[in-house]
Amino acid sequence: MEKVAFIGLGAMGYPMAGHLARRFPTLVWNRTFEKALRHQEEFGSEAVPLERVAEARVIFTCLPTTREVYEVAEALYPYLREGTYWVDATSGEPEASRLLAERLLEKGVTYLDAPVSGGTLGAQRGTLTVMMGGPEEAVEWVRPYLAYAGKVVHVGPVGAGHAVKAINNALLAVNLWAAGEGLLALVKQGVSAEKALSVINASSGRSNATENLIPQRVLTRAFPKTFALGLLVKDLGIAMGVLDGEKAPSPLLRLAREVYEMAKRELGPDADHVEALRLLERWGGVEIR
Amino acid sequence: MEKVAFIGLGAMGYPMAGHLARRFPTLVWNRTFEKALRHQEEFGSEAVPLERVAEARVIFTCLPTTREVYEVAEALYPYLREGTYWVDATSGEPEASRLLAERLLEKGVTYLDAPVSGGTLGAQRGTLTVMMGGPEEAVEWVRPYLAYAGKVVHVGPVGAGHAVKAINNALLAVNLWAAGEGLLALVKQGVSAEKALSVINASSGRSNATENLIPQRVLTRAFPKTFALGLLVKDLGIAMGVLDGEKAPSPLLRLAREVYEMAKRELGPDADHVEALRLLERWGGVEIR
Amino acid sequence: MEKVAFIGLGAMGYPMAGHLARRFPTLVWNRTFEKALRHQEEFGSEAVPLERVAEARVIFTCLPTTREVYEVAEALYPYLREGTYWVDATSGEPEASRLLAERLLEKGVTYLDAPVSGGTLGAQRGTLTVMMGGPEEAVEWVRPYLAYAGKVVHVGPVGAGHAVKAINNALLAVNLWAAGEGLLALVKQGVSAEKALSVINASSGRSNATENLIPQRVLTRAFPKTFALGLLVKDLGIAMGVLDGEKAPSPLLRLAREVYEMAKRELGPDADHVEALRLLERWGGVEIR
Amino acid sequence: MEKVAFIGLGAMGYPMAGHLARRFPTLVWNRTFEKALRHQEEFGSEAVPLERVAEARVIFTCLPTTREVYEVAEALYPYLREGTYWVDATSGEPEASRLLAERLLEKGVTYLDAPVSGGTLGAQRGTLTVMMGGPEEAVEWVRPYLAYAGKVVHVGPVGAGHAVKAINNALLAVNLWAAGEGLLALVKQGVSAEKALSVINASSGRSNATENLIPQRVLTRAFPKTFALGLLVKDLGIAMGVLDGEKAPSPLLRLAREVYEMAKRELGPDADHVEALRLLERWGGVEIR
Repeated sequence: MEKVAFIGLGAMGYPMAGHLARRFPTLVWNRTFEKALRHQEEFGSEAVPLERVAEARVIFTCLPTTREVYEVAEALYPYLREGTYWVDATSGEPEASRLLAERLLEKGVTYLDAPVSGGTLGAQRGTLTVMMGGPEEAVEWVRPYLAYAGKVVHVGPVGAGHAVKAINNALLAVNLWAAGEGLLALVKQGVSAEKALSVINASSGRSNATENLIPQRVLTRAFPKTFALGLLVKDLGIAMGVLDGEKAPSPLLRLAREVYEMAKRELGPDADHVEALRLLERWGGVEIR
Repeated sequence: MEKVAFIGLGAMGYPMAGHLARRFPTLVWNRTFEKALRHQEEFGSEAVPLERVAEARVIFTCLPTTREVYEVAEALYPYLREGTYWVDATSGEPEASRLLAERLLEKGVTYLDAPVSGGTLGAQRGTLTVMMGGPEEAVEWVRPYLAYAGKVVHVGPVGAGHAVKAINNALLAVNLWAAGEGLLALVKQGVSAEKALSVINASSGRSNATENLIPQRVLTRAFPKTFALGLLVKDLGIAMGVLDGEKAPSPLLRLAREVYEMAKRELGPDADHVEALRLLERWGGVEIR
Repeated sequence: MEKVAFIGLGAMGYPMAGHLARRFPTLVWNRTFEKALRHQEEFGSEAVPLERVAEARVIFTCLPTTREVYEVAEALYPYLREGTYWVDATSGEPEASRLLAERLLEKGVTYLDAPVSGGTLGAQRGTLTVMMGGPEEAVEWVRPYLAYAGKVVHVGPVGAGHAVKAINNALLAVNLWAAGEGLLALVKQGVSAEKALSVINASSGRSNATENLIPQRVLTRAFPKTFALGLLVKDLGIAMGVLDGEKAPSPLLRLAREVYEMAKRELGPDADHVEALRLLERWGGVEIR
Repeated sequence: MEKVAFIGLGAMGYPMAGHLARRFPTLVWNRTFEKALRHQEEFGSEAVPLERVAEARVIFTCLPTTREVYEVAEALYPYLREGTYWVDATSGEPEASRLLAERLLEKGVTYLDAPVSGGTLGAQRGTLTVMMGGPEEAVEWVRPYLAYAGKVVHVGPVGAGHAVKAINNALLAVNLWAAGEGLLALVKQGVSAEKALSVINASSGRSNATENLIPQRVLTRAFPKTFALGLLVKDLGIAMGVLDGEKAPSPLLRLAREVYEMAKRELGPDADHVEALRLLERWGGVEIR
């Protein structure tokens, strides 16, 4: 059984690395090092200085943006060993990841982008969906190590995982905001959001936003903080980059980024992404319920 | 058992009226009268001249737009009897329906808007979702007669059913078009639409468009004609009217109407609504698959 | 010389009626009647009770919206005399004005829509541009009475004047907002707005917004209150009605309304229309200068 | 008097280089070399092989995109001499130009971005507006050599000229398209575009599009080919890059790019930019006149 390592023990990474530690010898590192020590205590992983991460055959990263992955790669670079696999679970940038992959290959390290979907709950339960970009053989080689995954899909060459993740999140963003616009208008006309959703969710307009996010978080007024608005806006920026490559007219996804930028500026980047609907509520003068 | 009547034996109305005829004495009328005669033969309903429709205790209409409902109401007006219920399954206009309800009330006829969702398949199976607008007692009174329904939701006062239906279809429109934009960009970057959808449908960006419409109709290149683009654009127009009442900023739903208007003009109103993605494909120079 | 009357002595109407009073016997009426008395003193007009307005051969109205014109017409209706001309300088609604014209015609009164452009300064100087809708002969008949006009254009049938005015203001809105977006990005990159405008105003991107509004009101930080944001949003609503009749895709004008609705909700309807750029500045974190 | 050189004798560059040749010893080079020979004959410039361009103290480039400037710079690189000024009149990319400036500085060459506005007519008459980015002293040094300019504005550091040009063209694009949307709706309601423009151009909604482009090119149905749609879309892409640096919400400029991308795909990149309104006409079913 090969040794693995996990860098980035945030809300997602901490439980993901826990699943690894239950099945493989697992090194962990985190900028705030006490989290690594806590992880060691809770899951039996080994908290190590950054350079020792290079001992692992598979290095996992789960960081806020590709910039932090670059910083870590820079610091680790002298220690990296040929034959290592680097599985990057960050919601990162396709183009920058392709450059990183080339640079790591010079050291004999195979980079795979492998962002995940499923939220903190999926991370805790080990049921995340992983979308992987990279060479077929490498994807197959690392597949047995993805202990936190419920589903693994190899979507294309390096960068493709990031691209799919960004587009998925852009669709989430569109579906959520549009549902907010529509429900607000209905509420103002005397229709309860709950009844409207019970119809929509049995009809053609349904989406994850109408089936889960809005009933559980908006109608309840709970607005739990699970995925920051600032991070969704970052992902929308990555999605715009994917569209830039394509250049086909994409008016709805483009406009979605603009409205979430507005929401981020009015509500702050630390608001939850679903709170974007609070800006619609402010404009409409009523609550969605 | 009271007598019922059904006006409008189109792709939806024909099987809906069939479900009624299996359980109640049912009069049917259709502009192209031979359809009524065919229905009589197939389901044991009774094809009658329009004025005899007024004999029924519950009159159902399922017509292309509210304009046709008005025309029929005008023609039937002299014959209408007090205590009749009028259940309008048309995807109609909230405001115009409120005026019609007032006018029918002068004759003692209670109008309920009751548009349906579920498509021709749901109509055949009798599993349609019905969204009703009108007074509580009237909704309860007619409920046992909705033999074509799998689910009935009373969403609010007269017009509310139409409003919810229009917003549902607007969400369908947004979710579908945005998914088309995103998939197109991914396909152009070497990701198969099928793999991208297998990820998205296990993730937060999923919708009825990504789970059903696109896999079944776009990836297969089947594009069956089940719901005309021109009718979706009409429903988007109704949704804009719902937003007009509200006046809160609704940039995404507004823009959705504009892009479907473009698609309607480029592809013709008789194209299927899902074929709107063909316009995106034309702009992108690739097929979504 | 026939007698004229002017209803609505606001920021525009007061000086407009002044130009009339210098050349014709002029009756004036205003809801806040002391304004009428002040006008009588300043310009030698005659402040009269509303019903006496019907003595005039030409009745001018300049009110906030078509709704107020309807209210005044309702009150005056019993007194109206055949052969009267009604020149409505309100920025009003085409469709509602067509209905009003029909109703006034029953009394033998010819309604002309005649909104103006040129602002309070143009009103004081008597150099307003008047865009008239109505029958050719009537337009020619009243033309000599438009003492406040620098330019009179007969643009089409009743309602056409309102339609042109609404579209003009929608173009103002688009040109202004877009210039704000562009200048903000330039300022953030170290380009002074003044220099950028000196180039743009010698180039193809220039507009009234870049040549006058932004240099005089934004760069100076003066933001004088000359045309309320709430009124511009009302005019945008009328423009949307003009587009509704047309139904051709109009994505930019549609989106313009949405962003000004946002600005109205964030800044209040009494802010000046140019202050809409303050919302862009808030989002951008810099001032345009 | 120092020697100058001009690279890129297209529709703009050819007459611009002509103005130089009338006042300075001028070397010219063009990919299709016969144009250089023709220029030599017409203006007394000297057609030279590319490497001899390096003999000039001031090198001008006017090429389709920054990519071609890079290619020329690459080819010239070995021959470049310290103390040379490079004045790039291309409508180029700010970021790429900053990189080029750095690279040229290693050879002691000072790069200035200096895109122009005024069209082919301004180029012929020598009345172009030049927007310059770069160090103050260098701008002052080259200023006497800008023989084709009617107006020179130093707008900021390297890249600022390109940024201002791109935003100017984005404003042109927005103002033109929005005017097209509005006029189309008016025409459909029976208002002649000419009359509508005579009002708008005396009012607040006026712009270069309503004052010049539409009357001269659309109403006349002339649609002369002076500035290709494909080039405007390229400039819109550069403008999007300027906005990307800023990240403030810019919904109108963003949407403008999308609609011109549509027009480019439907009409082809070689159509004139004003022909974009033909797509609106196609959607609206009427001509703007």
